Amino acid sequence: MSSTRIEHDAFGPVEIPADRLWGAQTQRALQVFGSKQPFPASLIRAFGQQKRACARANARLGTLAPALADAIEQAAEALADGAFDQHFPLSIWQTGSGTQTNMNANEVIANRANLMLGGELGSKSPVHPNDHVNRSQSSNDSFPTVMHLTTVLELRGRLLPALGQLHNELKAKADAWQDVLKIGRTHLMDAVPMSQGQAFGAFAQQIQHGIARLEGCMPRLCLLPQGGTAVGTGLNTPVGFDVAFCEEISQLTGVAFATNPCKFEGMGTHDALVEASGALNVLAVSLTKIANDIRLLGSGPRCGLGELIVPDDGLTSSIMPGKRNPTIAEVLVQAAMQVMGNHTTITLAGASSTFELNVAKPVLIHNLLQSIEVLTDAVSLFSHRLLSGLEVNRAQLAHNVEHSLLLATALNPVLGYDRVAQITRKAADEGLTPKEAAVRLGLISAEAYAQHVRPEAMIRPTP
Amino acid sequence: MSSTRIEHDAFGPVEIPADRLWGAQTQRALQVFGSKQPFPASLIRAFGQQKRACARANARLGTLAPALADAIEQAAEALADGAFDQHFPLSIWQTGSGTQTNMNANEVIANRANLMLGGELGSKSPVHPNDHVNRSQSSNDSFPTVMHLTTVLELRGRLLPALGQLHNELKAKADAWQDVLKIGRTHLMDAVPMSQGQAFGAFAQQIQHGIARLEGCMPRLCLLPQGGTAVGTGLNTPVGFDVAFCEEISQLTGVAFATNPCKFEGMGTHDALVEASGALNVLAVSLTKIANDIRLLGSGPRCGLGELIVPDDGLTSSIMPGKRNPTIAEVLVQAAMQVMGNHTTITLAGASSTFELNVAKPVLIHNLLQSIEVLTDAVSLFSHRLLSGLEVNRAQLAHNVEHSLLLATALNPVLGYDRVAQITRKAADEGLTPKEAAVRLGLISAEAYAQHVRPEAMIRPTP
Amino acid sequence: MSSTRIEHDAFGPVEIPADRLWGAQTQRALQVFGSKQPFPASLIRAFGQQKRACARANARLGTLAPALADAIEQAAEALADGAFDQHFPLSIWQTGSGTQTNMNANEVIANRANLMLGGELGSKSPVHPNDHVNRSQSSNDSFPTVMHLTTVLELRGRLLPALGQLHNELKAKADAWQDVLKIGRTHLMDAVPMSQGQAFGAFAQQIQHGIARLEGCMPRLCLLPQGGTAVGTGLNTPVGFDVAFCEEISQLTGVAFATNPCKFEGMGTHDALVEASGALNVLAVSLTKIANDIRLLGSGPRCGLGELIVPDDGLTSSIMPGKRNPTIAEVLVQAAMQVMGNHTTITLAGASSTFELNVAKPVLIHNLLQSIEVLTDAVSLFSHRLLSGLEVNRAQLAHNVEHSLLLATALNPVLGYDRVAQITRKAADEGLTPKEAAVRLGLISAEAYAQHVRPEAMIRPTP
Amino acid sequence: MSSTRIEHDAFGPVEIPADRLWGAQTQRALQVFGSKQPFPASLIRAFGQQKRACARANARLGTLAPALADAIEQAAEALADGAFDQHFPLSIWQTGSGTQTNMNANEVIANRANLMLGGELGSKSPVHPNDHVNRSQSSNDSFPTVMHLTTVLELRGRLLPALGQLHNELKAKADAWQDVLKIGRTHLMDAVPMSQGQAFGAFAQQIQHGIARLEGCMPRLCLLPQGGTAVGTGLNTPVGFDVAFCEEISQLTGVAFATNPCKFEGMGTHDALVEASGALNVLAVSLTKIANDIRLLGSGPRCGLGELIVPDDGLTSSIMPGKRNPTIAEVLVQAAMQVMGNHTTITLAGASSTFELNVAKPVLIHNLLQSIEVLTDAVSLFSHRLLSGLEVNRAQLAHNVEHSLLLATALNPVLGYDRVAQITRKAADEGLTPKEAAVRLGLISAEAYAQHVRPEAMIRPTP
Repeated sequence: MSSTRIEHDAFGPVEIPADRLWGAQTQRALQVFGSKQPFPASLIRAFGQQKRACARANARLGTLAPALADAIEQAAEALADGAFDQHFPLSIWQTGSGTQTNMNANEVIANRANLMLGGELGSKSPVHPNDHVNRSQSSNDSFPTVMHLTTVLELRGRLLPALGQLHNELKAKADAWQDVLKIGRTHLMDAVPMSQGQAFGAFAQQIQHGIARLEGCMPRLCLLPQGGTAVGTGLNTPVGFDVAFCEEISQLTGVAFATNPCKFEGMGTHDALVEASGALNVLAVSLTKIANDIRLLGSGPRCGLGELIVPDDGLTSSIMPGKRNPTIAEVLVQAAMQVMGNHTTITLAGASSTFELNVAKPVLIHNLLQSIEVLTDAVSLFSHRLLSGLEVNRAQLAHNVEHSLLLATALNPVLGYDRVAQITRKAADEGLTPKEAAVRLGLISAEAYAQHVRPEAMIRPTP
Repeated sequence: MSSTRIEHDAFGPVEIPADRLWGAQTQRALQVFGSKQPFPASLIRAFGQQKRACARANARLGTLAPALADAIEQAAEALADGAFDQHFPLSIWQTGSGTQTNMNANEVIANRANLMLGGELGSKSPVHPNDHVNRSQSSNDSFPTVMHLTTVLELRGRLLPALGQLHNELKAKADAWQDVLKIGRTHLMDAVPMSQGQAFGAFAQQIQHGIARLEGCMPRLCLLPQGGTAVGTGLNTPVGFDVAFCEEISQLTGVAFATNPCKFEGMGTHDALVEASGALNVLAVSLTKIANDIRLLGSGPRCGLGELIVPDDGLTSSIMPGKRNPTIAEVLVQAAMQVMGNHTTITLAGASSTFELNVAKPVLIHNLLQSIEVLTDAVSLFSHRLLSGLEVNRAQLAHNVEHSLLLATALNPVLGYDRVAQITRKAADEGLTPKEAAVRLGLISAEAYAQHVRPEAMIRPTP
Repeated sequence: MSSTRIEHDAFGPVEIPADRLWGAQTQRALQVFGSKQPFPASLIRAFGQQKRACARANARLGTLAPALADAIEQAAEALADGAFDQHFPLSIWQTGSGTQTNMNANEVIANRANLMLGGELGSKSPVHPNDHVNRSQSSNDSFPTVMHLTTVLELRGRLLPALGQLHNELKAKADAWQDVLKIGRTHLMDAVPMSQGQAFGAFAQQIQHGIARLEGCMPRLCLLPQGGTAVGTGLNTPVGFDVAFCEEISQLTGVAFATNPCKFEGMGTHDALVEASGALNVLAVSLTKIANDIRLLGSGPRCGLGELIVPDDGLTSSIMPGKRNPTIAEVLVQAAMQVMGNHTTITLAGASSTFELNVAKPVLIHNLLQSIEVLTDAVSLFSHRLLSGLEVNRAQLAHNVEHSLLLATALNPVLGYDRVAQITRKAADEGLTPKEAAVRLGLISAEAYAQHVRPEAMIRPTP
Repeated sequence: MSSTRIEHDAFGPVEIPADRLWGAQTQRALQVFGSKQPFPASLIRAFGQQKRACARANARLGTLAPALADAIEQAAEALADGAFDQHFPLSIWQTGSGTQTNMNANEVIANRANLMLGGELGSKSPVHPNDHVNRSQSSNDSFPTVMHLTTVLELRGRLLPALGQLHNELKAKADAWQDVLKIGRTHLMDAVPMSQGQAFGAFAQQIQHGIARLEGCMPRLCLLPQGGTAVGTGLNTPVGFDVAFCEEISQLTGVAFATNPCKFEGMGTHDALVEASGALNVLAVSLTKIANDIRLLGSGPRCGLGELIVPDDGLTSSIMPGKRNPTIAEVLVQAAMQVMGNHTTITLAGASSTFELNVAKPVLIHNLLQSIEVLTDAVSLFSHRLLSGLEVNRAQLAHNVEHSLLLATALNPVLGYDRVAQITRKAADEGLTPKEAAVRLGLISAEAYAQHVRPEAMIRPTP
């Protein structure tokens, strides 16, 4: 339908849509792999940063003429800014090295630079996609460099801030409800009292640790294999290219990246990304617990635990009019399931490394970026729409504390375990409060009971 | 920017883009959950089939007036045909019941039917989204019905045919290479001879069994919970609605669906879908083995095993000009990794069932449909682009058979295990052929050796 | 400490404890791999069956002298009966083919047979472990044959009967409580009424399907690769050995085994075992749901849902005297987690197949047999100790049904969805029963309400 | 058979084997749960340390009389030293809190202490298992404390030293083979040269990072929840007990443990252990890659890659006499599979946390300790038996480098990518060396080629 032009690569001519900046290798790949599930824009744009930093490093080290380097850098900057998102059609289901997407970046930048320099699309002149844009590079070091780059930028720019907000919301609840008594539950069964704030303090610490775990991955995530070229040796790079690249990319991104001292490790394996997925997996575990506790404590409104009141989201059942459900908590739980499954895929992808190149790169980074994205979105939604409006049902909380059998546990130091067991058994069997049972058993007076069993004193150690 | 109209639901008025057919509940959900990752069209269109069959069943049983039923059926048919794909904006990251997408279908069909009947958008009259389109239904039975429906249709319509083709390709290779000798390998080490066709015969049987495994899931996949409504009881359905629905949907789809005798099981759990994912998981295991064997046997061209020749795909390295890689096999391996990870997510989603409703439906079906899709696409690509052009390297195969040490295994029945061990040890230590070693050890004459050790006879039992 | 004797293999002499029946290859393996985690007795004894059937088949086909075959068969029978469990010291952490355990069986049987025939331990005469006990066999076909054999026997002999009992217990509860009303819950929130029996009916159907899934694996589990020898070709076997073996093993075990038409598939891959693990994975999903529902419905005793009463197991808390917990349900949930994790290991092991031999056999079968065992034990415990004594709390169930807001759903066909939404909103906001709200809104009379909203009628379709 | 005595608990009398130190609750649990799969000794002994530190802390804070504290401490020390391993019969398949094993420890120590103090078995006097041994404790804080304790001690005492040795072995190979040229491989296909030492340097860095990842877990693994008692509040503990305990346990173990500032987090969740499993999962990924590369590079001896020579382990095939297999590498790969599957179980167990107690503790810690153990054993075996004897096949390595097509990549900076592509295509098509092809194409002289294409210069950047 649309008009086309001809591009050439080492294998001959290829017909390409006239308005697209990509070249022959991209077009061939498109014909093989299709366009069904493209990479996220964040990865495409990170290629802009990577090519830009390469051009700068090549210029510094004299491996690219300044005029070419400048043109490449400008085109790459536009790529980084999102100008060419529509020129990256390739599916993630492609070569395991991501070579075709690296070539896509090389071709788009070369074509764009050539236009800027007065050349023609497809001319490869003055800027050649392989000889200039890809100068001192291979797909084999560039693609994993971009994988690390995108991961770090998405974590720093999106997930970590969302987790910070979540932590703040949880901490605020922990503070606000520090003295709101509730019954604690172990094995799902009534245990001894605590405060609602203490429960949320635990949630807050989970997230605080989750943030620390992600930060703990950074030393290895910030190691970049750029400069390893084809297999890790640095063939066809000038000495110092790796370090120069990291200086440039650090300046462009504001993140302190460093060159991987063993490029082979950074190209042949993706342990650092499996590690990061592991940290996301723990986060998924934490979020599952938090969301489930809130769902269960908010269950009801009349036949459930009913201790928390989840804010109304305006949505209801298609058959039960007015029914309100904890939809947002369900989103969070589902997002966590996705992350745990992605972790399996990422582990498998990591474990498939053979020789000098891990060739499960596209599936690995697709899953990792998806994990980051769904967690970011679900966590933000949960903070803003659910937690911020969450309330406690004080009447229900107080009622439960009052009726709990195991308040009598506070008597252990006074009566000993075996006599307290008599009390709770009698109370359970006869439907009494533990106080009634204790007094009827003649083990303690009502006054002494009241003195020793004070729920508000049971939520901390004995002074 | 675009103009809007007002729709109402039980909670009040909502502003909606004027050109969209959805209603108030969809719009509210859109504001809560966004539109980032919509359901695949296959699921949306299956809702068309489901609503159509419901309208027919309601009409048959007298719970919908014929005029309304007809209008609903026509609108639903258009939905099934893909006319309204753009009117289903909701993300999969929504309520765990999929309620919002069921309401989306109800609202789109109601609006469309009302237009057809001369009514206005948003009037809910004469066709009401809940009272008529959703008649005798709940999201809680409709959404899982659609999950089963889509799964079965995608398996029958896409994956199973692709597997059939793959099986044919493998079988054709097995036949063509039935007498092409090769060295067998166990523990990756040289073993005894076999034929290249035998290896591909094993691949073919793997796929044949894989097809049988998917077929084995059908008895449970074809059980539909429609008619259970809110919790499984069938509240607000006429007696016989479940069976009538299955008759209608079977007629519409050409697949023999049956009503689940226990609706509670089909709504509260998704064991049948976890089972189907398990069958896909085995397939992923099989395909990993097949792809990896072909990659390894095709390794080289000069420093690898080099027994198979993978067809050229026109793609190459960005730094190593002319390098050819088994890209398509890598796609298949990566697709398999995705399926195995999705299986973890699906297992987690299945295991999260609580009480009368599993509320991990959207994440579960998203992963299951993605598994089917990526397997279908990767399997087709592999059959058409790789297998069909795969060749054997006869020179390399023959060379390997000739030099193998363990040809001497054929002498076990003649010399006994311990003496054959002497032969292979001597051959290995001194760089001899086993024949030379056997003769030098004086254990057998050259003539007798040649008579007993014939690779072409070693690939089957002794007659 | 203990006295030793000397055995020889192809590599020379080895010192062995005098009272042990194993030989040189076992002893060498013991020195390499140790004895930390031995195979379960079920697998060791299945080797007895396998060697016995091989001896018979060899005798029938004339590849073993009758006297030797008889001696081997007798020794193998003793092995099958458990007489030599202590003579199989090897860890599962050994060669990925299980070769050392096959050699262990060969050596023990040879030594035992030689003793019976008046020979000496370690003499390998008249019965040689490789030339006679292993006649027409390799580890590469024998070990996977035993893997299938043990799996089928453990499923048939242990897990399936345990599941049958579980199904009976669940069905009995479903029948007993068919008319005991309870509130249904979706999204953990109060929904519409159903019966306690209906909930248990769903559990029963889950288990019934779980049994069917295991049965569905049998066609492939019952295919045995015996007769493939080293790589699958049948080298050094007489024509017909594979079929003869299956006839013998079927007779010995009472299970209809058949020869795998493609030995390569049965030795190089373990898809059939991954499939079986997938069926166990679904079962784990089902059991998780059942156990969790019972735990949650039994939560309390005073601050939980309290609708079920879990029988007392005599165990309590170390600090909260008299506290009772659903310990047995927790065992079942934990067993299910183990099975799901084992499924990952088994999937990985299956996917690691390369060329003519999958060399993750020991870890795969260890995990599969453990899954079968822990499920069998946990299911039995759950049936006998928990389900059999489970009671309903009728007062609590009735109270919940009575107070539920969404009873008003029964009015949908009468008043329409939007008006019912008004009722439930008013009831929720003002703390009314839905009846009170409906009447106050003037939408229906108290009499009409009572006529239309009858919980006992809401648990089935409208006649 | 053996004689018995009677012990009592709050529920009445129980008969116990006379020679066993456990008491009534252990015996009841034994009757419920059986003894099939006991906890590892490392966990049992860690309970000795924990009870000892508790006794000391109670004595310091005045909550236990010195005489009782001394007796408890002595008994606990014996437990820590392994004296009572046989008195802990309980299966891991028990209550999800591990309560029964904590009670087992309380009862064994109480009985032992009473004997020392002149009391009788079962008298609970003067030392009571709950009131004294379990003083200031609950199972709910003690069991997770022991989980952390054992994990840290096993990592520090076993796995980390084994990894240190592995790292040393790999580093030694990296150094020894720093200049041994080999062909690099990407996508399993021949690429450009590198050195064998560089490949092993990557392995060494993987392990170095693996060690760092485990160390990175320590800040959270070393936080102990002891002092939280029943739900996390510290009920029935004296103020300062948590800190005093950590001082004592740190002194006893030589590891710097600290009190978890939020006991609720440490009892209700096990994120820190899921994190540790994640680090083991990455290690499993790394080890899989290392073992697989060595297996593949050592494949042959005549029909494989044959670049590495794996040392002989003395084991062979049961049918192919003298066949040598990389058995030990297969153990490592299988151990890695186990660890990855255990990681799924551990993730599931972690995600199952509800309210104030995670009740999947036994299955979680069982899997985590097993992961540590199998990795330790497999890594040690691999270092000592395989790596230490691994050799390179210099002839094969040199032959491969010499024949590689893509040596011509070194010409990119000289001729440009497109002309080099012509060279490699011609060489491939016509069976030439790239040098021959280059010269025949007239693109470069033989002398210039030899000057630019020097494999030994291609393994590092251009000076």
